[in-house]
Amino acid sequence: MQPSIIAPGFEATARLLAEATEQDPNHRAQLAVYVNGAPVLDLAVGSGLDADRLHGVFSVSKGLSSLVFAKLVQDGMVDPAAPVATYWPEFAAAGKAAVTVEQLLSHQAGLPGPVGGLSMDDFLESRPAAAVLASLAPQWTPGVAFGYHALTFGTLIEELVLRITGRRVQELYDEWIRVPADADAWLGLPEEQEGRYVPVPSVGGMGFVDPFGLSGLSMNSTAGFLDANGERSYDLMQVPNLRRVREVGPAAVGGVATARGLARAYASAVTGLRQADGSLSAPLLSAETIAEVSRDRVFGLDRISGNLKAFGIGFMRPTPDRDFGSASAFGHDGANGTVTFADPTWGVAFAYLPFTPQDGARNGGLVQRLTVAVREALLAQAAG
Amino acid sequence: MQPSIIAPGFEATARLLAEATEQDPNHRAQLAVYVNGAPVLDLAVGSGLDADRLHGVFSVSKGLSSLVFAKLVQDGMVDPAAPVATYWPEFAAAGKAAVTVEQLLSHQAGLPGPVGGLSMDDFLESRPAAAVLASLAPQWTPGVAFGYHALTFGTLIEELVLRITGRRVQELYDEWIRVPADADAWLGLPEEQEGRYVPVPSVGGMGFVDPFGLSGLSMNSTAGFLDANGERSYDLMQVPNLRRVREVGPAAVGGVATARGLARAYASAVTGLRQADGSLSAPLLSAETIAEVSRDRVFGLDRISGNLKAFGIGFMRPTPDRDFGSASAFGHDGANGTVTFADPTWGVAFAYLPFTPQDGARNGGLVQRLTVAVREALLAQAAG
Amino acid sequence: MQPSIIAPGFEATARLLAEATEQDPNHRAQLAVYVNGAPVLDLAVGSGLDADRLHGVFSVSKGLSSLVFAKLVQDGMVDPAAPVATYWPEFAAAGKAAVTVEQLLSHQAGLPGPVGGLSMDDFLESRPAAAVLASLAPQWTPGVAFGYHALTFGTLIEELVLRITGRRVQELYDEWIRVPADADAWLGLPEEQEGRYVPVPSVGGMGFVDPFGLSGLSMNSTAGFLDANGERSYDLMQVPNLRRVREVGPAAVGGVATARGLARAYASAVTGLRQADGSLSAPLLSAETIAEVSRDRVFGLDRISGNLKAFGIGFMRPTPDRDFGSASAFGHDGANGTVTFADPTWGVAFAYLPFTPQDGARNGGLVQRLTVAVREALLAQAAG
Repeated sequence: MQPSIIAPGFEATARLLAEATEQDPNHRAQLAVYVNGAPVLDLAVGSGLDADRLHGVFSVSKGLSSLVFAKLVQDGMVDPAAPVATYWPEFAAAGKAAVTVEQLLSHQAGLPGPVGGLSMDDFLESRPAAAVLASLAPQWTPGVAFGYHALTFGTLIEELVLRITGRRVQELYDEWIRVPADADAWLGLPEEQEGRYVPVPSVGGMGFVDPFGLSGLSMNSTAGFLDANGERSYDLMQVPNLRRVREVGPAAVGGVATARGLARAYASAVTGLRQADGSLSAPLLSAETIAEVSRDRVFGLDRISGNLKAFGIGFMRPTPDRDFGSASAFGHDGANGTVTFADPTWGVAFAYLPFTPQDGARNGGLVQRLTVAVREALLAQAAG
Repeated sequence: MQPSIIAPGFEATARLLAEATEQDPNHRAQLAVYVNGAPVLDLAVGSGLDADRLHGVFSVSKGLSSLVFAKLVQDGMVDPAAPVATYWPEFAAAGKAAVTVEQLLSHQAGLPGPVGGLSMDDFLESRPAAAVLASLAPQWTPGVAFGYHALTFGTLIEELVLRITGRRVQELYDEWIRVPADADAWLGLPEEQEGRYVPVPSVGGMGFVDPFGLSGLSMNSTAGFLDANGERSYDLMQVPNLRRVREVGPAAVGGVATARGLARAYASAVTGLRQADGSLSAPLLSAETIAEVSRDRVFGLDRISGNLKAFGIGFMRPTPDRDFGSASAFGHDGANGTVTFADPTWGVAFAYLPFTPQDGARNGGLVQRLTVAVREALLAQAAG
Repeated sequence: MQPSIIAPGFEATARLLAEATEQDPNHRAQLAVYVNGAPVLDLAVGSGLDADRLHGVFSVSKGLSSLVFAKLVQDGMVDPAAPVATYWPEFAAAGKAAVTVEQLLSHQAGLPGPVGGLSMDDFLESRPAAAVLASLAPQWTPGVAFGYHALTFGTLIEELVLRITGRRVQELYDEWIRVPADADAWLGLPEEQEGRYVPVPSVGGMGFVDPFGLSGLSMNSTAGFLDANGERSYDLMQVPNLRRVREVGPAAVGGVATARGLARAYASAVTGLRQADGSLSAPLLSAETIAEVSRDRVFGLDRISGNLKAFGIGFMRPTPDRDFGSASAFGHDGANGTVTFADPTWGVAFAYLPFTPQDGARNGGLVQRLTVAVREALLAQAAG
């Protein structure tokens, strides 16, 4: 087990995290913050938790796969402004010929899911699910709205990457990010890592969800998921607890990680990582690429949830009610309250991973206050 | 008087309605729900009310006239993407040449009403009012916003239908929907039906409304309406109480109906109606037409009211704060709290008609909970 | 000192203002309302305040400079739909070639400020700041969002006017508005007027603002401002207290005025001003120009603040939550709670100027209620 890290100046941030656990004994979380490629915080709080335990990170997986996609943009392998059908001809069906790549990856295509739902097999194999989505008419006129594609974002980016490169996004993620960054953040968890996985606790029902409503479609409420006992489950929070899901690592929701691993993934892509010899690795992405993929493609109220959101090409962006970073920050959160992002202006890579689901990302919530504390520490260092 | 209907499985929905009246003695309402063309609920609650009484349904009228318009789209008589001026050349005036039919019927044209207001005569005769609207400059750059055209939506659809077909929308409604569906829902109430009409109660003032503000223009606050005593009234809620209004049946606000009639109108258009011989009538609209007219043309905050809204071609759609149905649901509400819609995925046609004005359409409100209860009953039947 | 004015019929409005001071001893404000070019209210309330004292008006300055810009539109010197680069070629840099004049002046260009901030000298000299802004990439894809450019709006309009006319917007303001209207509202306060200036009180801190976040950039939080003692200050509310700022009169935030002066400026532009001989001066702007510049270019949630806003060409417009006037009203507010606008339909020019910062512009707040009282008075006169 690696020792905890609290770099000088970041004591107040660590204290904020510790206080949350003092005030709520159920609070268990990891926090990792890198600045210019070196860790300034690497902590775990809460009973029985250490910084090496793996946990489900839900939609944070979307950010990891979007880092891969950014590299494809950087290498000129895909034009974000081109129609999806340029790379995936079948996608042109049913009035979607003009939908662009950047529209698709900013939740504008109106494909939250088919009315009949997707089977677990089709979703995990991905290509059968992609074929279904390609055939669908959009749920709204593309461009009129955007609405969070909780599950199908993964299917869509998986198929698009496969069409562009002939390879799985998970494979490219391993090659470009996880292995070179030594990032303990997996899209597809090998059997030998399983011993470190801590299951996501159940949080009970969420009231009536119309399985044919936009929310229900986006959560695949009709078909549901087969749970660990082979039972059909409708509790999305249990999805990463299925070994099949962890093994495949779907780009929408299948990631498994430590906070440290997530911070390292973002740091390696954006700032580079400090090496043992003191040098800094070359970041995967150039400043130009980062500016291109992180620029808002949409801002406003989400058609499905009604929440205020902004998205670049796959990445979630800070909004007035969720001030997690500077104007250049980009990343993704997850259904259990995980928050991950890079902030190129501050040189920060940040990952907060709760082992008890919570929502602290809104202004004034714990996670947002942690991001403020980090920025205050950096301001103090700059002034000092 | 027809007997009440509570089909097996829908007892909980009926109980919810009854409880609302137990808790609020002023609550009086009709509820009618059809599933796949047959009634599963047909009820009236509240003192002295039965399911055969007629009442004003306000903007629900917009949904009825939009069913007629959908048939014109289906028959290829109008192209929703074409400029309004294709069919109505005078409409091109004052910067409106590019405004399309689908923009006009999704409240994007910026024509809530002229500053001087419309006279009652011009509004009821419709063509004089249409000539005024055609001459106006839009209140916002079309495409920049949408804002609910509470009264002028009716004038605009009336003129457009007249230009396209040479006939009044009310006449086509009778021919295509009311008569074949035997729907007790009228755009233009004959004298002999008057004995069943229950007046809409007065609800008092609504505070200051700038007659020249967007809201004031949209409610014709300058000119007001001549009330039943020939007095000028500014209380829009009294409009259907005027015999002249009921006689003409303006497409914006002039409808008079029972809940059963409204549900039959939607069922006949979308699912077909179960006939005495057990067969199902052919629905007026095809699945393709329904998808086309119900797809969102706008989603967001209304320029006039500030409320979250989504509109297809004339139809109101569920929003995150008003979850009344599946992703395919479409219909319209009314100023007194009437809610009507068809939900093709569920096979439902729904009408709730309060005889005491209320607002229960928001999530958690009575009407929204009634829609949840209906869907839970259908889920239970599917599972059972 | 000029005497207070309370024209017959406007007693209730005056009483509303007086009551606010009775209820809150800290409330100090001026109110001036002109109707069809003649004053109906000209008042000051609060200890030691009279109607001739000058005060900082913050972003109200943006409205004054937008009146000048409207005249350029009217004279055909600038086409609002043309790219900014037509007049300012360097602006085309970094992906901004297609940004139009009307997009720029409705906060759509995504240029809240450079990451390093602007120096006080560059900001006050304006052209160095403009050169920086012209070189920047937009913070969002133009057209995707709008976000309030609290400071840079001034730099941008100053440079644009200079490019179009070869003259400073402040100079044209003096020539076209301040001098002919005898408007005690200054963009650039001469030394000899200084004795009438009342400093804006400090209101203390506003919590953490990320200097590199969109809000921080828009408030120049990195560089801050040199305060009256030559100290660096980050309190934007103190900016007009700097003599250098008052002297230059930046179009974003540098205006200094009485409420009477502000009302006269708007009246002279929109209704004309009643002259000593009883005649009405010709208004600076035609009805056509007013319609063009005041029409919404954006409506929705501000990318930076999250607040509901609507903007024409530089002018702020009433929104559902801030009902200050008719559908034709346009003006601007300021950070201290100043509210100014013209309402062509009502013939009103309105200015409320608080000497203690407050926020009363939302519906139900003092300023909004004052605008209602004025409109009720006018309705009563029309009816009487």
